[in-house]
Amino acid sequence: MTSFRVGLLGYGTVGRAFAALLEERGEHVLGLTGRRPVVTGVLTRGRGSFDEVLAGCELLVELIGGVEPAREYVLAGMRAGRSVVTANKQLLSQHGDELFAAAREHRVQLRFEAAVAGVVPVVRVLSEALAAAHVDRIHGIVNGTTNYILGAMAGGLSYPAALAEAQRLGYAEADPSDDVNGRDAAAKMAILARLAFGTPVRLDDVRYEGIQHLHADDLEYARELGLGLKLVGTAERLDGGLSVRVHPAFLYAGHPLASVSGPFNAVTVEAPSITEITMSGPGAGGPQTASAVLGDVISVMFPPATPPPPETPLRLIADVASAFYIHMEVADRPGVLAMVAEVLGRHGASIKSVVQRGLEGNARLVMVVHPLAESRLVAALQEIRGLEPLRSPPRAIRVIEEEFV
Amino acid sequence: MTSFRVGLLGYGTVGRAFAALLEERGEHVLGLTGRRPVVTGVLTRGRGSFDEVLAGCELLVELIGGVEPAREYVLAGMRAGRSVVTANKQLLSQHGDELFAAAREHRVQLRFEAAVAGVVPVVRVLSEALAAAHVDRIHGIVNGTTNYILGAMAGGLSYPAALAEAQRLGYAEADPSDDVNGRDAAAKMAILARLAFGTPVRLDDVRYEGIQHLHADDLEYARELGLGLKLVGTAERLDGGLSVRVHPAFLYAGHPLASVSGPFNAVTVEAPSITEITMSGPGAGGPQTASAVLGDVISVMFPPATPPPPETPLRLIADVASAFYIHMEVADRPGVLAMVAEVLGRHGASIKSVVQRGLEGNARLVMVVHPLAESRLVAALQEIRGLEPLRSPPRAIRVIEEEFV
Repeated sequence: MTSFRVGLLGYGTVGRAFAALLEERGEHVLGLTGRRPVVTGVLTRGRGSFDEVLAGCELLVELIGGVEPAREYVLAGMRAGRSVVTANKQLLSQHGDELFAAAREHRVQLRFEAAVAGVVPVVRVLSEALAAAHVDRIHGIVNGTTNYILGAMAGGLSYPAALAEAQRLGYAEADPSDDVNGRDAAAKMAILARLAFGTPVRLDDVRYEGIQHLHADDLEYARELGLGLKLVGTAERLDGGLSVRVHPAFLYAGHPLASVSGPFNAVTVEAPSITEITMSGPGAGGPQTASAVLGDVISVMFPPATPPPPETPLRLIADVASAFYIHMEVADRPGVLAMVAEVLGRHGASIKSVVQRGLEGNARLVMVVHPLAESRLVAALQEIRGLEPLRSPPRAIRVIEEEFV
Repeated sequence: MTSFRVGLLGYGTVGRAFAALLEERGEHVLGLTGRRPVVTGVLTRGRGSFDEVLAGCELLVELIGGVEPAREYVLAGMRAGRSVVTANKQLLSQHGDELFAAAREHRVQLRFEAAVAGVVPVVRVLSEALAAAHVDRIHGIVNGTTNYILGAMAGGLSYPAALAEAQRLGYAEADPSDDVNGRDAAAKMAILARLAFGTPVRLDDVRYEGIQHLHADDLEYARELGLGLKLVGTAERLDGGLSVRVHPAFLYAGHPLASVSGPFNAVTVEAPSITEITMSGPGAGGPQTASAVLGDVISVMFPPATPPPPETPLRLIADVASAFYIHMEVADRPGVLAMVAEVLGRHGASIKSVVQRGLEGNARLVMVVHPLAESRLVAALQEIRGLEPLRSPPRAIRVIEEEFV
């Protein structure tokens, strides 16, 4: 068995999650690429030698964060012929020119999916799927802390109360300055704008405004106008130039970013040939960020194109449990609901909610039942169909029950 | 200048859009990859020789559709060492085993982003960004025709009326059978399931149910229960096996697919390490499908990793026009709104909507103004701030005006 040697710089929340994920999915990656990625060296603030980590690896994963010494390490790695995967938005938004030039010069890969919007694959989609698109505009919710706070303010909390709640839940750091003042989002928009518009955008080029000055009653009045409030990053062509900026903005309900809630991130890309694409998902979190890093590591190992042979085909399952909506027309008299409920209960269907409504002598019974196997529901409906008070065959439609953040 | 020779099979709506897009973006692709893709041969139903197209190209783009002769051409191309880009869901969902085996055997790429959910990059994200993820479940709205029809039915139309409207708008074909009976969505789910779960899923393995039997009043009752109706494709691990199915299903409002409207497609991927990612965009259309095909062509030409040097950096723009929400506390007496409106008008701000509300002797004025340059709004607010009836400094927040499908 051949291994693929990964040098890991940084061993905080994300570094640890990455090492754990590599261990957990190593066998799978071996199946995909023919090699198993293994961490051959770790450098932390207090321990390890960069030169030894570098000498022992084929690829550097940089999860230290901040500008120095991360910049020095990444440049040294690329000069030594190592590809680099990084999650470092500060570094890329402040020293992108130097880093990308070094990657080109030394013919190595520099991948950074995790630096923007966590596990949302916007970097890959912009640089690969949309490589040829003439992008007109990007709108992004690229800071989960502020998105959570604004959601809590929309629920009536003041800014300080919403911030405190975000801190309690781990969505905001003890010092939330760079999140709430818009600087974190500005760094991410600088990176996206560089990718989408082929223009060297630096953090200092991005105008940004935060959410600290917002009032809960702005959100209340805005709701009357049909608007929701988000911290929106924008990069767009204007008059033959480019504007990159971050500020609170109201969105109409139909906008694809309007429904992004909690600590989620989302990015909308607009171009004539695609109309628009929206991607959303968790913007932070150790396992999620580690997952984005691992996706990049695999791409360095093996640019995939054709699915590998199935290793462990799964058995295909036909009879699946689901919640169901059921619609019946029945005679409008006492006891009918009880009769129907008895049949359902005998087949294992338990009623979650019912709406009954009169209809010219008949009644309509509309209900949702908790999940049960489709075969059991079919048997129950078969029996219900034969009940005397039924006025038309019952109709059933599945209900997907999960509610998301 | 080196060119990259593309053989084009099929010259219908998508084929023509692809040829036009290649022409339009050729210079850009040259900048990205060092080669300009050019169509060196075209085969249509009536004209051209497959052998000549094959002999003259490095890559085959298959946009004929249907199983034969597309299957024969794609296999012949791969045997001759050509990578293939295809948008053909029938072919992949019915002959995937044979095609992927041929791609592996002949060490060529077989790419097919456009076969599922149009320009939504779900194939690339599943096979690359999420290559190592242990996917638990995929939910998809992968048929725009039925999504449009269900939206129209939610607005009160009967199924036949909604179908007729979809046909009039070009969202449904003259013979819509494979769309409305769920078979088209089933083919796409078979392809996604194969990618996500490494299991050879064929169209015949997918259970599907269409929307023809749905009643508008099901949607009406469901709304009372807080549910929206979609045609949902599902592929999920169950009891150590895999279930792949398509059926109408109700979704609670918080589900990421619940807000996907009109002819759009969307796919949600769930895995422990990522929580969930949702991607949405146009599921069909000539330019959109062609754009997905071009993304695949570029990936065959050049697996990108590091952004190329910026060719034509754009000028960065600071003063951007925007609509604004403005909040003011003013003395509650006649003429104040007129006074404020006069100042706004003089600076070029025109009022779109106003809410005024009394507040213990004062009043709150909340308004939205049509887009104007930020510098002009700042000047207007500066002047308004000095008006005698103002009781607190005015506050302004940008409004993003676009409403989407």
